[in-house]
Amino acid sequence: MNVGIIAAAGRGSRMGGKPAKQFLELAGTPIIFHTLSRFEQCGLIQEIIVVLPADEIAGFLSLADKRGVHKLARVVSGGTTRAESVWRGLQAIRASKVQIVTVHDGVRPFVTPDEIERTVRAAEEAGAAIMVAPVIDTMKEVKQGEIARTLNRSQLRRALTPQSFRYDLLYRAYEEADVLDPELTDESSLVERLGARIVAVEGSSHNIKVTQREDLMMAEVLLKELG
Amino acid sequence: MNVGIIAAAGRGSRMGGKPAKQFLELAGTPIIFHTLSRFEQCGLIQEIIVVLPADEIAGFLSLADKRGVHKLARVVSGGTTRAESVWRGLQAIRASKVQIVTVHDGVRPFVTPDEIERTVRAAEEAGAAIMVAPVIDTMKEVKQGEIARTLNRSQLRRALTPQSFRYDLLYRAYEEADVLDPELTDESSLVERLGARIVAVEGSSHNIKVTQREDLMMAEVLLKELG
Repeated sequence: MNVGIIAAAGRGSRMGGKPAKQFLELAGTPIIFHTLSRFEQCGLIQEIIVVLPADEIAGFLSLADKRGVHKLARVVSGGTTRAESVWRGLQAIRASKVQIVTVHDGVRPFVTPDEIERTVRAAEEAGAAIMVAPVIDTMKEVKQGEIARTLNRSQLRRALTPQSFRYDLLYRAYEEADVLDPELTDESSLVERLGARIVAVEGSSHNIKVTQREDLMMAEVLLKELG
Repeated sequence: MNVGIIAAAGRGSRMGGKPAKQFLELAGTPIIFHTLSRFEQCGLIQEIIVVLPADEIAGFLSLADKRGVHKLARVVSGGTTRAESVWRGLQAIRASKVQIVTVHDGVRPFVTPDEIERTVRAAEEAGAAIMVAPVIDTMKEVKQGEIARTLNRSQLRRALTPQSFRYDLLYRAYEEADVLDPELTDESSLVERLGARIVAVEGSSHNIKVTQREDLMMAEVLLKELG
């Protein structure tokens, strides 16, 4: 049994916060349902847990009923940080014999079922795997407002989601973490602290995170392009 | 006297290459003329040198005639790398008493005259200054396909253009550089090698580089938004 945790507890204050960013519509469908459909289509995911702001749960459940999210196992309310939200999702898993847990941002609707599958398979082999994309811009290290050095772009990757882990490994990482630390921007950073092996799975730059107004417009463009 | 060098010698093979990416139209105007108009509007730039593919020069000049690029001093043909192209632009400067040279990507049409001005002023003070923008994604160092570590995002910046330098400093940096090295992705990296002080000037994320099909669509969205 492999479980997907959809992290969608952020409010999206950069876009005004009402409706929460994950409920903004793309082609008539709230973003989070685009995302969920990608997990529905992935054969390696059997159950989905969605983490939401507490006051969005009722509305979500009524929409989910109509749209038929067949793998939806539980909906839980998020915490004050991303890490706390995902930790709550992880603790809400009731299935026995869970092998791989895959965490994904609710506002990354362009992940493909194939990308989810490749990440899960890599985690099955190595214990942990995260989706990454190349760094396009020249990257500088800055100290006190001045350029310290240029980084070697070929050794850098942008961390996206999905991020997949053996259940016991991710659980242990959260047990040892301070989940209230706002600097924990992805699950991988927690698992890195355990010194565990984490495979980088190359993904598409189309797998954008929709957090700002321009992202939403870009998402509309991508949806037309990619279908 | 301050000179702007517009680096537009790339062909844009990622967008098919015909027309070259810098001549693709945004709202009926080739991208490079959007970019040039920002330099026309900046009071701290007196002369502009444009570096183009050799076979685009005649067409550019005829368009420039109609559109009236008043500060245009020279048009030169580019080299095989970005560094070689900019170096040719730099060597083409004929004005005496050049203080600051500002290099800018021809396919960054959303730079504002204010951003150019702030970069030039910072270079007047410190000798060198480049426009940067925050890093939004979590950044990982990858070794042999595995995650080595998470970088501290607050110390990282994406290097954009404009990049402004005291003329003699930039000239010396190019004299000492291997301009055929394709890894020299920005002017700053050359000047960094001299150990010179380079100020990071915070700019807008709207200042995107239009190199791919999706960028062009994003540019159309931004143009409507920003005017």
